[in-house]
Amino acid sequence: MASHQSPSITQNLAWLYRGVSEIFPNLTDSQNRHENLVERLAQTNRPLRVKLGIDPTGADLHLGHSIPVRKLRAFQDAGHTAVLIIGDFTARIGDPTGKSEVRQQLTPAQVAQNAQTYLEQVRPILDFDTPGRLEIRYNSEWLSKLDLAKIMDLLSTMTVGQMLAKEGFALRYEKESPIYLHEFLYPLMQGYDSVAIEADVELGGTDQKFNIAVGRDLQRYFGLSPQFGMLMPILIGTDGVQKMSKSLGNYVGLREDALTMYQKLRQTPDILVEQYFELLTNIPLDTLPENPRDRQILLALDIVTQYHGKEAAEKAKEDAEKIARGKTEQAEALPEFSLENIQFPAKLFYIVSASKLCKSSSEARQKIQEGGVRLDGEKVTDVNLSFDSPASLQGRVLQVGKNKFVRLVNPN
Amino acid sequence: MASHQSPSITQNLAWLYRGVSEIFPNLTDSQNRHENLVERLAQTNRPLRVKLGIDPTGADLHLGHSIPVRKLRAFQDAGHTAVLIIGDFTARIGDPTGKSEVRQQLTPAQVAQNAQTYLEQVRPILDFDTPGRLEIRYNSEWLSKLDLAKIMDLLSTMTVGQMLAKEGFALRYEKESPIYLHEFLYPLMQGYDSVAIEADVELGGTDQKFNIAVGRDLQRYFGLSPQFGMLMPILIGTDGVQKMSKSLGNYVGLREDALTMYQKLRQTPDILVEQYFELLTNIPLDTLPENPRDRQILLALDIVTQYHGKEAAEKAKEDAEKIARGKTEQAEALPEFSLENIQFPAKLFYIVSASKLCKSSSEARQKIQEGGVRLDGEKVTDVNLSFDSPASLQGRVLQVGKNKFVRLVNPN
Repeated sequence: MASHQSPSITQNLAWLYRGVSEIFPNLTDSQNRHENLVERLAQTNRPLRVKLGIDPTGADLHLGHSIPVRKLRAFQDAGHTAVLIIGDFTARIGDPTGKSEVRQQLTPAQVAQNAQTYLEQVRPILDFDTPGRLEIRYNSEWLSKLDLAKIMDLLSTMTVGQMLAKEGFALRYEKESPIYLHEFLYPLMQGYDSVAIEADVELGGTDQKFNIAVGRDLQRYFGLSPQFGMLMPILIGTDGVQKMSKSLGNYVGLREDALTMYQKLRQTPDILVEQYFELLTNIPLDTLPENPRDRQILLALDIVTQYHGKEAAEKAKEDAEKIARGKTEQAEALPEFSLENIQFPAKLFYIVSASKLCKSSSEARQKIQEGGVRLDGEKVTDVNLSFDSPASLQGRVLQVGKNKFVRLVNPN
Repeated sequence: MASHQSPSITQNLAWLYRGVSEIFPNLTDSQNRHENLVERLAQTNRPLRVKLGIDPTGADLHLGHSIPVRKLRAFQDAGHTAVLIIGDFTARIGDPTGKSEVRQQLTPAQVAQNAQTYLEQVRPILDFDTPGRLEIRYNSEWLSKLDLAKIMDLLSTMTVGQMLAKEGFALRYEKESPIYLHEFLYPLMQGYDSVAIEADVELGGTDQKFNIAVGRDLQRYFGLSPQFGMLMPILIGTDGVQKMSKSLGNYVGLREDALTMYQKLRQTPDILVEQYFELLTNIPLDTLPENPRDRQILLALDIVTQYHGKEAAEKAKEDAEKIARGKTEQAEALPEFSLENIQFPAKLFYIVSASKLCKSSSEARQKIQEGGVRLDGEKVTDVNLSFDSPASLQGRVLQVGKNKFVRLVNPN
């Protein structure tokens, strides 16, 4: 992509290109047009405004979501301004047809709560402290003020044909699935966000190209210099097959405890390790260890450090090694399960289920029968094993299979 | 249409059905649904609200435009409320793409002026005086207050497929002519007018069925009882071939003087006479004279009476008869042309052209050479005939061919 740049510029801009699928537009001198992000960076004497829009749906974020946020941080570190846009307006109006699960209508309180949850999760990634490096904006600030005349203006910038060419719409139109007219407004609202905050760059997944291009058109229409789009890959999950997603279970959540995170990343499939390094760490790719096991450990340590700090990451590594040697009960930083809501006397299979180590009591009973449940490393054999009080379980480690375990704690 | 009604109801409702192409919906008891305008009229104990929307484009209206206005008057006379909606909002925002000639952006002052012009022209048709019979509303009253959330609501009531099925859009989409997204808003704005004024009936030409149906959908969406649509034919012009239109020259303008109106209508093609009676007069069709000439005279007299009163109509008839006998100069109510802006000495061909009897000076010279120009009934033969002062032309009749004439007046 940067082959026409001098080596020194390319080296200085390694942070810019790392893990990027596409930057557009990328016009070179040969066409005598200069719409090129590297030139913009070289020529500007002010911080660029780099936009990332987020839906305040309150979801748990995972490493896939972290990719554009990490790029945003890279821009911050290069002296630019991150503009996080919280799509509270869209969340509040929802989808009037009620057909879409993702566009549920939320109350202002829910939106505020969800935005808070989101910000807490990205706090380890972004620079919240350096003055001028972060703006958090809610798009109701400008969208709630649009009147019909302005909306006519927005709509007039696009044709039905252009909109129906958008991936998603094209297929539905062909299949004669109904496309409701208001759905055409979503890309325009996202695009108008770029107008309102005067974005220089917008970040997104490769599935966002159309919407970011709409932003460019609207900025031009309103007399602004159009933004650049920077697209990043959609992350493959820890199964090595499908895109990372909570519902598929192949995810690493940003709020997971250090040990869980470490254990998952320590087992990253070999084919994904290099891409994970590129997208999820800042480690130069030409310094990676040769040995696949060492790579997995370095990857896990680096990412856990980002979210939990160096000490917690080292402890997770040690704990993981104890667990691998069958000494789970000696691990120090196991996730905890509080017994406070368990009624005693209690059967062990019930506690296994309540702690989410199994999905149901019947699965828990089956696991015990199969010899897959351990208490402090000792295999449990009695399906009807029962405890009279929480005191006798305090501090003990309950484990299902190789990778699922909790330390039981009694808060009373 | 009313075959299932008893004869007496049908007779009482002759005013309702006269000149109507379609009333919809028109569900009968057999389906056990009762959405039927005649039932609504019979059951309601309040005046219905009958909507007619107009574009304040400032055009000269002609008899074609008068058809739904006359139906509105019929509803007034039956005790209902005419709601004239002046589309000032649409006129003020215009067409943002600037592609359409009809959607030119107008200033508030122009809109007010055009609305005034429109109301003056329909004043002879409507009942402006009886309390409660006429509401004049400007749609900016509600459209300017719509915000994005409400507009999303409006748009969500329709699919892209439904909108593209609309005549006009379907053809353009097929031909791959661009359809701009904001064009989808026009039917919805017209429909929302019906919501805002809580219309029971909307009147329009047969080309308005889609838009009126959108109004029904929106009323239902907002929890109102949906309006009935009443569609009337598009009037054929005096050429007997094409739809009446100023640009085609086959029109009778509502502001034309009594004699011009009379002369045009006196020559209505036989095939149109009965339809003109039905659509443009209240005369019972079974009382029309047998003789075609008598019918034309009755038609012309009745319509001129509507716009200029009985006396002016009688005088127009007398004048027309004088003109027919070659005694144009004896006619009393000829249209006048003021000489105040003519520079004397002046050639006659120039005055012929300035008075619009011919389209250009060269056409005027040619008409004189052909012997087609008369002054007080005397054929003019000298192409270079010239007059030194307006005094010598005061009160004289200038005529081109059989039907074009003015009385010259000198205001000084």
